[in-house]
Amino acid sequence: MAERESQIVLGLDPDPSGLWPVAPGSLRAGASLGPVAAAVLGHCAALIDSTAPACVAVKLQLARFEVLGADGWLVMAELAAHARRCGLLVIADGKRGDIDVSARAYADALTGGLDTPHGRLEGLGADLVTVNPLMGRDAVEPFIAAAREAGSGVLVLVRTSNPGAADLEDLSLEGGGSVWERLAVMVDELGRSGVGEKGLSDVGAVVGATEPGHLPRARELMAHATFLLPGVGAQGGRVEELAAAFAPGRAGGLVSASRSIAEAHRRGAADPQTAARAEAERLRDAAWELSERAGMSV
Amino acid sequence: MAERESQIVLGLDPDPSGLWPVAPGSLRAGASLGPVAAAVLGHCAALIDSTAPACVAVKLQLARFEVLGADGWLVMAELAAHARRCGLLVIADGKRGDIDVSARAYADALTGGLDTPHGRLEGLGADLVTVNPLMGRDAVEPFIAAAREAGSGVLVLVRTSNPGAADLEDLSLEGGGSVWERLAVMVDELGRSGVGEKGLSDVGAVVGATEPGHLPRARELMAHATFLLPGVGAQGGRVEELAAAFAPGRAGGLVSASRSIAEAHRRGAADPQTAARAEAERLRDAAWELSERAGMSV
Repeated sequence: MAERESQIVLGLDPDPSGLWPVAPGSLRAGASLGPVAAAVLGHCAALIDSTAPACVAVKLQLARFEVLGADGWLVMAELAAHARRCGLLVIADGKRGDIDVSARAYADALTGGLDTPHGRLEGLGADLVTVNPLMGRDAVEPFIAAAREAGSGVLVLVRTSNPGAADLEDLSLEGGGSVWERLAVMVDELGRSGVGEKGLSDVGAVVGATEPGHLPRARELMAHATFLLPGVGAQGGRVEELAAAFAPGRAGGLVSASRSIAEAHRRGAADPQTAARAEAERLRDAAWELSERAGMSV
Repeated sequence: MAERESQIVLGLDPDPSGLWPVAPGSLRAGASLGPVAAAVLGHCAALIDSTAPACVAVKLQLARFEVLGADGWLVMAELAAHARRCGLLVIADGKRGDIDVSARAYADALTGGLDTPHGRLEGLGADLVTVNPLMGRDAVEPFIAAAREAGSGVLVLVRTSNPGAADLEDLSLEGGGSVWERLAVMVDELGRSGVGEKGLSDVGAVVGATEPGHLPRARELMAHATFLLPGVGAQGGRVEELAAAFAPGRAGGLVSASRSIAEAHRRGAADPQTAARAEAERLRDAAWELSERAGMSV
């Protein structure tokens, strides 16, 4: 973040009915892909090329790649490699969560891979993986173990950005606090042993930007967690309301935007590439200024 | 179930370090797969061939296929087709859950597929899909909508089989009840409009077999839900304790077992195929007798 002066995460959430009209370009996997996957690859690569200088990471929304079938994994791997070549971190947003052995298999898939008696399986090599904690601590711990082996991190869902988050996450518990606050305490506990010299842990949290009123309390409960803040733009969140996320420093918040960048050209006269870059730069400047005004440094 | 006189779900949860030593056989995808994926396909196909007459469905644990990368999807598709040829239903156990557009993409991937301006994407064609409801009702509804279009169903996590389930799902809520009971009420409400002539809904629930004490209350709250009951065998659950699941009839419970079937040969002298079939038949007889004694019919 310090190097790139950006906290912006480019969300790769390609809707096959709204792709940019671009060719797959020079990315190698393109040749062997089906037509939908090739179009998705071209769209996402162009998005990365247009906005990379303003961003610090890409976030792959795994649902949009799973729907491509076997091609989806090839496209994700190609995009992850391309993002890394552009100097970006890679976030695998799959919100996986399962019992111990299954959680470990997901973690191996998305991070460092696995050696088996039949040969090696390569992982996606993600720097951060989102995890769903409904099933409890033992569904999250295998992701943390795998991340520590690979030198990466996890982002645990705490209070998500969708309207339905209120149905369960906001319920009040007997004895005080809400479900999401209990999740925040779990994140803090799981992350204690992973706090680095900058004061941030390898166990972060997903805290939606759509309910910024929760941020100060979330920060109070999770002093060392990096927050992934989705929901800016299409879902209604605004960068200017996210100051509390940056209390532990500029790296305390990752501001994620998907549709607001990819669809920026629909709100003006510019071509998709130019509009996307302008929107990413606008978000970058807003977040950087906000974290500077809070008197923080990375 | 009536036709096959079985409520047993064969869990396909292949650990690459514990596969049966079998050849991929006649399944076509085998030729183009990497060595680990080919070994997984051979193992799972042999498991299906050995136990299909005693089972009503297979359950694909998606984590074990995701770790195979692009090959994983090919193997799953091949196994789903093979299971259908053997007369079995297919359950995609991915525990997916995400915001509206992403949930719909997962649902399209696992059920009926998607038409796009760039061509058609085929879905996995699963008859049932497991869903994680942490993010609330709007994260579950797209799966139900997709299932109704495809003539399939969903199974919502309510009270899972792992020890960590107690961390969050068992928390007591202000005003009474637990988190999992609130999820059960959500499942019942979402499923009301999908109750068929047999009294069962297309919205079912995952209720772990490891805490059978919860089953009567779960059945009280979800009168019309089919219960998927994982955790029999390796996780400690016993068929004989699951009677409450069958209150609405024999189809009220799907008894899922993975490792206890695939690893049955480790507990005796028989070869893997023979031991697996014997264990599946034992479970089938135990569950069928239990549901008969409860005075129920399909």
